[in-house]
Amino acid sequence: MEVVLRELVTIIGGDLVGDGSVVIGSVAGIREAGPGSITFLANPKYENFLETTRASAVIVPQGSSHPSKPLVVSDSPYLTFIKAVEFFVPNRDRHAPGIHATAVVAPTATIGSSVHIGANAVIEERVSIGDGSAILAGTYVGRDTQVGGSCLVYPNVTIREETKIGERVVIHSGAVIGGDGFGFVKDGEIHRKVPQIGNVVIEDDVEIGANVTIDRATTGATLIGRGTKIDNLVQIGHNVTIGENCILVAQVGIGGSTEVGNGVTLAGQAGAAGHIKIGDGAIVAAQAGVTKSVPDGITVSGYPAREHSQANRIYASLQRLPGLLKKIADLAERVKQLEEKLRK
Amino acid sequence: MEVVLRELVTIIGGDLVGDGSVVIGSVAGIREAGPGSITFLANPKYENFLETTRASAVIVPQGSSHPSKPLVVSDSPYLTFIKAVEFFVPNRDRHAPGIHATAVVAPTATIGSSVHIGANAVIEERVSIGDGSAILAGTYVGRDTQVGGSCLVYPNVTIREETKIGERVVIHSGAVIGGDGFGFVKDGEIHRKVPQIGNVVIEDDVEIGANVTIDRATTGATLIGRGTKIDNLVQIGHNVTIGENCILVAQVGIGGSTEVGNGVTLAGQAGAAGHIKIGDGAIVAAQAGVTKSVPDGITVSGYPAREHSQANRIYASLQRLPGLLKKIADLAERVKQLEEKLRK
Amino acid sequence: MEVVLRELVTIIGGDLVGDGSVVIGSVAGIREAGPGSITFLANPKYENFLETTRASAVIVPQGSSHPSKPLVVSDSPYLTFIKAVEFFVPNRDRHAPGIHATAVVAPTATIGSSVHIGANAVIEERVSIGDGSAILAGTYVGRDTQVGGSCLVYPNVTIREETKIGERVVIHSGAVIGGDGFGFVKDGEIHRKVPQIGNVVIEDDVEIGANVTIDRATTGATLIGRGTKIDNLVQIGHNVTIGENCILVAQVGIGGSTEVGNGVTLAGQAGAAGHIKIGDGAIVAAQAGVTKSVPDGITVSGYPAREHSQANRIYASLQRLPGLLKKIADLAERVKQLEEKLRK
Repeated sequence: MEVVLRELVTIIGGDLVGDGSVVIGSVAGIREAGPGSITFLANPKYENFLETTRASAVIVPQGSSHPSKPLVVSDSPYLTFIKAVEFFVPNRDRHAPGIHATAVVAPTATIGSSVHIGANAVIEERVSIGDGSAILAGTYVGRDTQVGGSCLVYPNVTIREETKIGERVVIHSGAVIGGDGFGFVKDGEIHRKVPQIGNVVIEDDVEIGANVTIDRATTGATLIGRGTKIDNLVQIGHNVTIGENCILVAQVGIGGSTEVGNGVTLAGQAGAAGHIKIGDGAIVAAQAGVTKSVPDGITVSGYPAREHSQANRIYASLQRLPGLLKKIADLAERVKQLEEKLRK
Repeated sequence: MEVVLRELVTIIGGDLVGDGSVVIGSVAGIREAGPGSITFLANPKYENFLETTRASAVIVPQGSSHPSKPLVVSDSPYLTFIKAVEFFVPNRDRHAPGIHATAVVAPTATIGSSVHIGANAVIEERVSIGDGSAILAGTYVGRDTQVGGSCLVYPNVTIREETKIGERVVIHSGAVIGGDGFGFVKDGEIHRKVPQIGNVVIEDDVEIGANVTIDRATTGATLIGRGTKIDNLVQIGHNVTIGENCILVAQVGIGGSTEVGNGVTLAGQAGAAGHIKIGDGAIVAAQAGVTKSVPDGITVSGYPAREHSQANRIYASLQRLPGLLKKIADLAERVKQLEEKLRK
Repeated sequence: MEVVLRELVTIIGGDLVGDGSVVIGSVAGIREAGPGSITFLANPKYENFLETTRASAVIVPQGSSHPSKPLVVSDSPYLTFIKAVEFFVPNRDRHAPGIHATAVVAPTATIGSSVHIGANAVIEERVSIGDGSAILAGTYVGRDTQVGGSCLVYPNVTIREETKIGERVVIHSGAVIGGDGFGFVKDGEIHRKVPQIGNVVIEDDVEIGANVTIDRATTGATLIGRGTKIDNLVQIGHNVTIGENCILVAQVGIGGSTEVGNGVTLAGQAGAAGHIKIGDGAIVAAQAGVTKSVPDGITVSGYPAREHSQANRIYASLQRLPGLLKKIADLAERVKQLEEKLRK
């Protein structure tokens, strides 16, 4: 599909600066873009690419300018870029309705309309799959699980029994939803397994990364709140509650029964102990080790995690520590000499 | 199944306090429980739920009391709860014997009695599966692997060739057992692969979490000792030896050839270097970085991991470090003034 | 196959010391080896096993000696051992050519000669698989993906659409190549997904561990350079570029758009922030948290990662910190007394 830039701007928004008659036929990254494509500049770090890009037009933030390149100035270049992708590549995540001949679907399963079930997928007894959802190749959906409408479950996912999944949920390959919580109780030397008879509940618009593990609850539910986005290789323990619109970056781990509020961000490789609360809007820095509850709106970092500005001061002071040791030894010597002088 | 509490106590143990005639028909968590169910209180943190739970009876630790709620007082509420679950939900992990029509089982494989092999599972040449084991959908078992009796291997697990698995082992979805050890040797600029011709041996009663990776040995065996429980996303390097009844919490990593003793606990996200020993009964705190061997019975924490009370003192002192810098500058100034005074 | 040691040395290299007439029929680890096998000693830590091994011959580094055991002295015992394995176990990773009856191969896929496609593997439209490659059971290869020749993709791998894979690439079970990058942009309270329309490019001779996740680029490509080796459970964010011949140890995480040079080592559980550069030949120690760019050839460690010798000094000083607090309190008191004395 080709369209002149002037027309495209009426569809994707933003303010046109420069020649609106250039023809645009595709979207591309600023480095890879060639003539006929539109690209975007979201991170000011990459502003110098504006000089070298071969794109025919660039979506830029307020304040950017270029003498000759046609620009689309936007308050949010990312959102404008999303609209451009939706225009040029409209059906990229669509999967044709139908159940593959090799899929194994239990007779008691309820499959909605326009559902895609891929090759070798396994759908167990009493599962329901909502309208327009796609369960791709090799994915397993355990008995009595409910998957809402317009969900996209990538290949080789495992969803264990009794899981409840809302609408428009995306689950990436290799994720395991509803594995047993890690609950054992000591009985002499040995560890006896505590049966994990709860389940996992995933609300609408959640996205779950590749090879993520979300454990079922011992009793009750492990809950992932509406709109929360989870990156790859994240671990969510049993009976954890994650609020709405949270961001959990790759390799984060959350201990059992911890409550995470709404709008919380946990950056990469951060860990939170079990049985604590992380308040609404809190931010946990990368690799932080959260050992106790975090109040609403607070940013924490370091190990053990402390309020960020305090942690920053500590970590900045650290590099002066080796010098400090010398300085103190020197001071101690000088004080000793003063004491001796005064003793005479 | 329904039973009066008085009768249930004769089955699950504990001391009845209060009305033994209430009828119990299910188990549930303290927050979700409704009338007719029995719940439990294991963590004193949740004692206030005793007031609000709608359960008809509660299993509680010694010392708990409630004016009107029927209680089952137990030395170990968790163990008593396990018995209640076994009574009310007796066959929850049972899978009907039989080989699914879509499973691919090599003619030279030996399948015991009462074995369940799920849809699209693949069992390669000369594999043996012991009596009563279940290999669920989509799981792959490589050639010459032995799986003992009463094992439960969840969907989409990969067990590579020549693995030896004992009795009553549980392996959760996405786990990869016997992948190649990470062994390369530098040959000029490039890294040449060291063939990994050993295997993995998993003893009886081990449980392995979702998306865990346990590498096969370069030569010999990577060993997981009897009764050890491994949480999700844990990495075990080649030629590692883990003792009996250990607990490895989620996202732990153990470097190649390290020996872990019996009864060791590694908490979440802890890492251990290769070629070291972690002694019997040692405890490694969450996120600790163990760089050298740990003696028996010692608890270590922090990075690099140190004996826990020492590490605790260090991490507690840290927050005074920024203030210390000021204090020392002030002291240095005062000492300088004293020196000048005395010079006159 | 059996051969006398003297003859074997002409094949695998090294200098024979001792009886060259012993018959060798297999390779084994130094602890497990029995009569008739050759083993190797690469790590001086295990030199004492030279006394106790039952192997008939041992490949050893320069400088090793033993009064009675036949030795093969080598500049690189590992490389010599690799040759011995290749001699005694020549075809261990070979998979018979052919497409399993249960594999699902799209009619538009191009399958080279001598390709093995395992049970229940799924090969989507317009995929090409090069000569001599093996795609094992349950693996999914998404549309328009190119896999080069002599590749080995283990069971239950997921390769998403449009991935480009070079020659002789090895991918271990559970790895997910080309999952969506974790890109969201805030739109009020909610996070809107940034379409991930780029792909993943994996060059020749790369090895990728079990349950690794490598995200596709937002636009353009996420790139893994020639000869790089990646251990299990590593996370590579979208638009990351990894150079040639790098080593990424287990559970490492690399944030989006970060550039890693050639010959870089990242040790276990290390993390690197997004949008930074790690220079050629740099070494990142285990668990380090790299928050800013690292120059060529530098070793960094700790959190936040600093030049290693500086970090070492800091971490060594740390254990003196609690004592320091006391020392300073004492100094402060003594200075106060001196001041009082002089005031009089």
